[in-house]
Amino acid sequence: MSDVRPPGLERLSINQETVRQWSLPELVDGCARAGVPGIGLWRAPVAEYGAGRAARLVRNAGLAVTSLCRGGFFTAADPAARAAALEDNRVAVDEAAALGTGTLVLVSGGLPECSRDLAGAREQVAEALGELAPYAAGRGVRLAIEPLHPMYAADRCVVSTLAQALDLAERFPAERVGVVVDTYHLWWDDAVAGQIERAGRCGRIASLQLADWVTPLPEGVLLGRGQLGDGCVDLRWFRERTDAAGYEGPAEVEIFNPALWARDGDEVVAEVVERYVRHVLRAPAEE
Amino acid sequence: MSDVRPPGLERLSINQETVRQWSLPELVDGCARAGVPGIGLWRAPVAEYGAGRAARLVRNAGLAVTSLCRGGFFTAADPAARAAALEDNRVAVDEAAALGTGTLVLVSGGLPECSRDLAGAREQVAEALGELAPYAAGRGVRLAIEPLHPMYAADRCVVSTLAQALDLAERFPAERVGVVVDTYHLWWDDAVAGQIERAGRCGRIASLQLADWVTPLPEGVLLGRGQLGDGCVDLRWFRERTDAAGYEGPAEVEIFNPALWARDGDEVVAEVVERYVRHVLRAPAEE
Repeated sequence: MSDVRPPGLERLSINQETVRQWSLPELVDGCARAGVPGIGLWRAPVAEYGAGRAARLVRNAGLAVTSLCRGGFFTAADPAARAAALEDNRVAVDEAAALGTGTLVLVSGGLPECSRDLAGAREQVAEALGELAPYAAGRGVRLAIEPLHPMYAADRCVVSTLAQALDLAERFPAERVGVVVDTYHLWWDDAVAGQIERAGRCGRIASLQLADWVTPLPEGVLLGRGQLGDGCVDLRWFRERTDAAGYEGPAEVEIFNPALWARDGDEVVAEVVERYVRHVLRAPAEE
Repeated sequence: MSDVRPPGLERLSINQETVRQWSLPELVDGCARAGVPGIGLWRAPVAEYGAGRAARLVRNAGLAVTSLCRGGFFTAADPAARAAALEDNRVAVDEAAALGTGTLVLVSGGLPECSRDLAGAREQVAEALGELAPYAAGRGVRLAIEPLHPMYAADRCVVSTLAQALDLAERFPAERVGVVVDTYHLWWDDAVAGQIERAGRCGRIASLQLADWVTPLPEGVLLGRGQLGDGCVDLRWFRERTDAAGYEGPAEVEIFNPALWARDGDEVVAEVVERYVRHVLRAPAEE
């Protein structure tokens, strides 16, 4: 595909959930046709298709799997539940290795039931990373801690800022545990510029994920992400800051939005490409 | 009322929006009967009833108005819109003075339309405070900057953390500009302990507001606050931290929740009182 790829798309990746209406073969075919060189995958559709078969499909199309979403959900009051989560995360590592991606995205999990102890829950995450990181390293997979917006702190992810993610990651070697810089989750944080610099300095940026912030938020606040350029996030700023921090990896567009899923997949991908060039790549003067 | 008031309720205040089903006279009567000494009021119902008449009603019942909600919404691309907002805020100050409360709660406003500049919007807030604070001080009213949860940063409040609120407040004398510590907005922030201490040290805590965090969040994320004890916020911790920081003012319960509004107001107030004693006042051993 590389000979027909539009210039500037070298780092672009489209996460599977952005075009959820597509099967895995449709995604691979559609991205290849659009000149998008990377895709981010999710465990459930990969498992359904078969990890080995998915790996061959992607490889034969000349694409790269830029990340596997997701492991994590380490927090639980019950030690047996925490052990089961760890076991499931080892399977996720194996799947990432089979797909040929070096990045397993981790969403830490929320507060254990009946708990009000955020710091304690973060310690559970640290313990789980201590168990999982050597296993993942042995399979060529780096764990990527994703801080989620504070609105998910109770029920989904007790790691709410890039600083907290780095505090966790830095307990381990950089080649084993990195962090995800996701514009949707971090745009509001006035400390994020300094933390991106910190993350880059120690080689911890494992992934850059892109989505815009639009309001009103939907019930449950999971499926309200905006197409690039539709919201208030300075996406270019994030690309420039991560560039300056030395990050050269993929820029993965991950938008959970039923309005995109209701449209033609090719049209959505073409729009993502156009918005990526306009709002992420270009300098303001070129807008 | 003080002779029949249950012990421990000296600092309790119930915000009008917690029992929105009640008219102002019903609120005043209901709180007086329940031994709740303070109420927090909102501008629209006060204006409808008449500020002077409302002040007499509250005073005659032996209650105190602990805060008026709310001024603010200072941010706008258009200078004329910003001037109009300031003018409206001067009226809010006058209403607060008429009600005999020294605390006008301010929600700063979100990003101006088409803007992605959070820092610039916060400067607009600072400019507005510079205009409004002397006017308010002349009427015995202190401006109280309320940081709102980061999920409101785009459309409602560009001040998302207690640190940001204090950065703004500290440009002015402490007796003119303070901050609101609201458990619903701040519970997720691992910097909040230090910032409460900072706020107390300089005498900036103008109000302590209480609500719990429950999930899932509703569409628009405005009306999903939880009754005290129903969620994951360590409310007692906030009371203890603000106590330790030297705050001796009201603890105002402000819960926007249609499920509470559908119930009998007396029953809701009785529940608030019981939950306040159990989850805010008592030591864990007494639970």
